Amino acid sequence: MTTPLLTTLRQHLKARGIDALYVPTADPHQSEYVGEHYQTRAFLTGFTGSAGTAVVTAEHALLWTDGRYFIQAERQIKDRGFSLMRLNTPGFPSVTDWLCTHMPAGGTLAFNGRTLSRAQYDELSRALDAKGVRLLADDTVLESLWENRPALPQEAVFLHELRFSGETTASKLARLRDALGDLDGTVMSSLENIGWLFNFRGRDIAHNPVAYAYAVVTPATAVLYLDRAKYDDAFAREMTDNGVTLKPYDAVWSDAGSITGRIAVDKKRTSQALYQALSQADLVSAPEHVYALKARLNDTEEANQRETWLEDTTALVRFLIWLEQAVPAGDIDECRAADMLSAIRSRGRHYLEDSFDTISAYGDNAPMMHYRATPDSSRLLEPKGLYLVDTGGQYLGGTTDITRTVSLGEPTAEEIRDYTLVLKAHINLATAVFLHGASGHYLDVLARQPLWQEHIDYKSGTGHAVGYVSGVHEGPQRIAMMPNNVTLEPGMMITNEPGIYREGVHGIRLENVYIVKEDVTVGSDRFLKFDCLSYAPFDRRLIDVSALSEKELSWLNAYHRDVCERLLPRLNEDERVWLAAKTAQL
Amino acid sequence: MTTPLLTTLRQHLKARGIDALYVPTADPHQSEYVGEHYQTRAFLTGFTGSAGTAVVTAEHALLWTDGRYFIQAERQIKDRGFSLMRLNTPGFPSVTDWLCTHMPAGGTLAFNGRTLSRAQYDELSRALDAKGVRLLADDTVLESLWENRPALPQEAVFLHELRFSGETTASKLARLRDALGDLDGTVMSSLENIGWLFNFRGRDIAHNPVAYAYAVVTPATAVLYLDRAKYDDAFAREMTDNGVTLKPYDAVWSDAGSITGRIAVDKKRTSQALYQALSQADLVSAPEHVYALKARLNDTEEANQRETWLEDTTALVRFLIWLEQAVPAGDIDECRAADMLSAIRSRGRHYLEDSFDTISAYGDNAPMMHYRATPDSSRLLEPKGLYLVDTGGQYLGGTTDITRTVSLGEPTAEEIRDYTLVLKAHINLATAVFLHGASGHYLDVLARQPLWQEHIDYKSGTGHAVGYVSGVHEGPQRIAMMPNNVTLEPGMMITNEPGIYREGVHGIRLENVYIVKEDVTVGSDRFLKFDCLSYAPFDRRLIDVSALSEKELSWLNAYHRDVCERLLPRLNEDERVWLAAKTAQL
Repeated sequence: MTTPLLTTLRQHLKARGIDALYVPTADPHQSEYVGEHYQTRAFLTGFTGSAGTAVVTAEHALLWTDGRYFIQAERQIKDRGFSLMRLNTPGFPSVTDWLCTHMPAGGTLAFNGRTLSRAQYDELSRALDAKGVRLLADDTVLESLWENRPALPQEAVFLHELRFSGETTASKLARLRDALGDLDGTVMSSLENIGWLFNFRGRDIAHNPVAYAYAVVTPATAVLYLDRAKYDDAFAREMTDNGVTLKPYDAVWSDAGSITGRIAVDKKRTSQALYQALSQADLVSAPEHVYALKARLNDTEEANQRETWLEDTTALVRFLIWLEQAVPAGDIDECRAADMLSAIRSRGRHYLEDSFDTISAYGDNAPMMHYRATPDSSRLLEPKGLYLVDTGGQYLGGTTDITRTVSLGEPTAEEIRDYTLVLKAHINLATAVFLHGASGHYLDVLARQPLWQEHIDYKSGTGHAVGYVSGVHEGPQRIAMMPNNVTLEPGMMITNEPGIYREGVHGIRLENVYIVKEDVTVGSDRFLKFDCLSYAPFDRRLIDVSALSEKELSWLNAYHRDVCERLLPRLNEDERVWLAAKTAQL
Repeated sequence: MTTPLLTTLRQHLKARGIDALYVPTADPHQSEYVGEHYQTRAFLTGFTGSAGTAVVTAEHALLWTDGRYFIQAERQIKDRGFSLMRLNTPGFPSVTDWLCTHMPAGGTLAFNGRTLSRAQYDELSRALDAKGVRLLADDTVLESLWENRPALPQEAVFLHELRFSGETTASKLARLRDALGDLDGTVMSSLENIGWLFNFRGRDIAHNPVAYAYAVVTPATAVLYLDRAKYDDAFAREMTDNGVTLKPYDAVWSDAGSITGRIAVDKKRTSQALYQALSQADLVSAPEHVYALKARLNDTEEANQRETWLEDTTALVRFLIWLEQAVPAGDIDECRAADMLSAIRSRGRHYLEDSFDTISAYGDNAPMMHYRATPDSSRLLEPKGLYLVDTGGQYLGGTTDITRTVSLGEPTAEEIRDYTLVLKAHINLATAVFLHGASGHYLDVLARQPLWQEHIDYKSGTGHAVGYVSGVHEGPQRIAMMPNNVTLEPGMMITNEPGIYREGVHGIRLENVYIVKEDVTVGSDRFLKFDCLSYAPFDRRLIDVSALSEKELSWLNAYHRDVCERLLPRLNEDERVWLAAKTAQL
């Protein structure tokens, strides 16, 4: 099938001699959450998930996305003329492989140069070079068809005060320059890294406290490209005091051509357009150096983050109490539950916004791992079955991300079995002790093994980094089956979120955030461990105690004791009674 | 301190304008076990271990080796003027880092071009380029000082019959050519890969049934470079029948210059000298394609390997019975025990030789992971403490490698605790279920986690591939903390050998070989598992049953039941009684 949009787009492609249009999910900064202005792929395909790539040719309209989104994407794209290509699934070629097969020799592949990263450009270039395919930056062929395209936001930024950041920009710049070694500078595109380095936050992208900006740091200079409309005089003074020069956002394009010397850029975060504009520099590709500096919390950040977690899980507990009372009365659907959670959380101290759209998923909606309830899809919560809530907040003192799955009625044996398995997976990773040098990839199997023993897998990573008042999914550390060799270092935050997703039945995920800590050093063996930041009860009714090992049960009881001790002082009398019962020893 | 050898060597280095000499442990084929003729590093340093690199400058004489050998190397090099550099240990730079620091700018680093791999050459070149260091191939500066250097062996090779190989050379060549795709050929240096491809074995290197050879395979030709003195007419006919041309070993050097087109070479296995000699070819670096073909056993190979294991563990059981009786009578030392084991094994069907020097290590000798008893070091076995035996054989139908640790007296609580922990580590890996796509690196933590929980690590990989009638340590698969992304495929053999090594006290290692097998496929999830090949009893007296989980105990009992069932038919009445007692259910 085709649609008016596809028909018109194809006419334009033909007129410009373009054989295929490549549409990733990206803004010029390769932000994970892409603002409305850059939701070109969603505009084209109807698919609203956070990750995916579309390709349109005269004959094909295809959308690639990963296992988290298979179910959702199928539903959303089916009336838009697109077919789903499942990533990392036998029988489905990767985007690049597909293009290698289907691009005509000597043909033209177009993309938007400001939103395609240099890394993607390189990959396409390498793959299609043999066929003589021409890569063409064309920033308008699709964008010109987008009526009512949302404008670029111009929200004000605010300074992230020292009591929250724990380190001045001047000090961070000194550490960055130290890390750059004998390089002549770095051009930064990552909005979250720029916000951390210059101790400010913004509101340009929903859920991410960032603002559109670029930065260039050399041994002698630090330039922050940020529009004047976004900051006040105090902000300007603070930057000056820290040795930072302010220039308009777009000035990076005219400055780029005069940057020389050995300059670090992160090909994964730098657009092909900016990479090309840095025509006089000797570019050295490396992950932005700030990643490694930013990934390890300082003491101030950790203290704030711990306090923020208690604020956040207090809200979650109040929501769970409300849910337990409201569901039997009827009239609560997924959307309303999500709204209620947001409302409760928003009363928290230092709350900024939610860190992502809450996943409020009931019954057979929950297997869609990144499901977002809409008025169309929203199911009425009944006093039976499982309800999954994956939610988090942005606060001045930290970022949260937590998932709980609760039974709304009398749990079935299958629900108890699956929940207990996921809990075992969670505990098996949470209690890991590991030698310094271990990556999240190396530890991933600890979470999966209890499920694999039952021939169950989940189609997602086990854990992602969480930024501090920053993106809720951040690098560089990651716990996943996909290889990555980033060493877990003390002070790094990471989620632990195994799950079981039975299509058409239920979805279970249990997620806490942990911070890496020193454990014990024996001789030259430096052992690390995970220390929990998130304290909220698991659902006791869904736990088969007989299936837990002694060690697992003792972890669970200790955890529930901690939940109770830490949250009780923040609750009223009724809430205390509820929490005490939910965290009673098993 | 210095020695006459070092003094003379330094004079020669100075005379030739060489600032540093780099001496890896290598032959021209980068064989893991290096024949006597190429034991240049051992000649220089006195260190007899299988891995290490020496560097000599005017001021320094250093030996780098890994954790398996720290204790042994310290002992062996201390009177030879060398100092130990511990690999992967904080405070000790790598060889390359050390050279970067200590090489004078514009200085000269010499090496033997026939024994330095191209990969090592590239690494040195990259690291030292900035300092303008010249890399100089000098094959004689050290070698000329070596009086009584052992000659290159000229042992006869023999055909590996179809009943053992399960596939003709013609068929293997066809599969290799298929794997080469559109490449114009491959130049092979790996002796074990060449032996597999051409279905022959040799005796040029102790413990490895290989012969010095090279091979060049193109779509139309297959040339085996092997000296005429090594084979008979039947061998020559067999090669001709399979489309193979035979040329003398050294002819590869004159042929190399005329090889053209896109040619695959494995930089890790190809010497710098040969790489340079291939001056007209467009070299494409990749692991030798035969690795992947060879790593998965065919049905004939697997059946032979299973039979071979029973032959081998029958010998091990007989040895353990002898040991139990002989030790209390006195007069048994580590050397004599190793000799007895070899003697018993050598009576086995299709036995060729031991697959490595048996590690026969008593008490505080056992923490040296790759200890080899010598008349000097050999301890008398007393009826107390732990004895570790790590041993294996080469047979026409397979290669074995197994480790058992046994108590020679009344075990102590610490011995029981440590042994049980190692057993738990072994079982935790042995019982893994894993999604196809998992590497050995990814699974490694399963073995280490039970030990890490007690803040104990072992300084070695957890498992290595075992060749089939081939090298006992082979790639490409490996279970280790060091990153490697080789997917474990059905038919691959790999060891499982965690350990606890307490310096000055005892060493415990429990090693079996497993073969990867299909488990269950659920939808697109293809689960694999390990199937055991090695059946020999664990020491029941050293197992604390109360520390085992239900699952671990049930694995152990099932394993012992299998040991008993499989070996009983091969034993005499007394031996049966012994084995039945040792494998009684716990």
